[in-house]
Amino acid sequence: MTAVPALSHTQVAESDRAAVQVWLDECAAAWVTQDAERMFRMATDDVEWVNIVGMHWRGQAQVVAVHDLYLNTMFKGVPMSLKSIESIRSVGSDVVIAVVRWSIGQFSPPDGSTVPAADDRMTLVFRRTPAGLQLVHGANVQINAVAEQFDPSNGPPRPN
Amino acid sequence: MTAVPALSHTQVAESDRAAVQVWLDECAAAWVTQDAERMFRMATDDVEWVNIVGMHWRGQAQVVAVHDLYLNTMFKGVPMSLKSIESIRSVGSDVVIAVVRWSIGQFSPPDGSTVPAADDRMTLVFRRTPAGLQLVHGANVQINAVAEQFDPSNGPPRPN
Repeated sequence: MTAVPALSHTQVAESDRAAVQVWLDECAAAWVTQDAERMFRMATDDVEWVNIVGMHWRGQAQVVAVHDLYLNTMFKGVPMSLKSIESIRSVGSDVVIAVVRWSIGQFSPPDGSTVPAADDRMTLVFRRTPAGLQLVHGANVQINAVAEQFDPSNGPPRPN
Repeated sequence: MTAVPALSHTQVAESDRAAVQVWLDECAAAWVTQDAERMFRMATDDVEWVNIVGMHWRGQAQVVAVHDLYLNTMFKGVPMSLKSIESIRSVGSDVVIAVVRWSIGQFSPPDGSTVPAADDRMTLVFRRTPAGLQLVHGANVQINAVAEQFDPSNGPPRPN
């Protein structure tokens, strides 16, 4: 009989890890094909999303609509790739939280600014359902590469 | 017999709303008193935190240590106040997600930059425990006030 490993930062059920990877693969494919409906197909009706500039969208219809707009304008042709799944945790019986890191190319939002290529750190909260993991919440933070060198959890600063 | 209201964007058990408010009050008090241990007293051992520049900290000891450093340096004396609880949702039986908006005064991080006063939109994921709601994950996004005017969910842009 094989012991069931405890769920922790580094150990999580393989089925959860696989399901998160499927979600991320779909997200990446939806980005390239500019298909917001596909991006949030595995999401609950009440999914919420906080983007890198702090906009807060509520409900699948709104989350899909704003992503549809952005995927077909400022993100069109902009490269995006997954760098790593940094953390996956089970929370109780119903929820899985993942933290993942993406790389995004330069883009130009409607406010007229230019956002240089950068990495984003995305928190994804999933609910277990009979149909598999469904996204209930996303929060995306742009990684400040200068500040990152001063992250106290990495020890003394390493300036350029 | 009173019908139990469905949990949705705007309706959530009053006890959950009260517990989130207690957590936020403690967070605000801990900020003023520079007490990182207090800030994460109602957090699980495996709590994770993603801050506004995308640093990712794991586990209560690390999350407390980095906040202890920052509360006693760059955040010391910087005003912070809660503007609103924007969303509270139950997810399954074990989890509550809140999105809250804070105002933070100007501060100067160790990288030598100056961060102007701004609002932050914070995602907080709590687990139900016998001791009440315990934080399992925080992700904090700085609200870009210029971009906010172009939030497509608010209708046509309202430039200054």
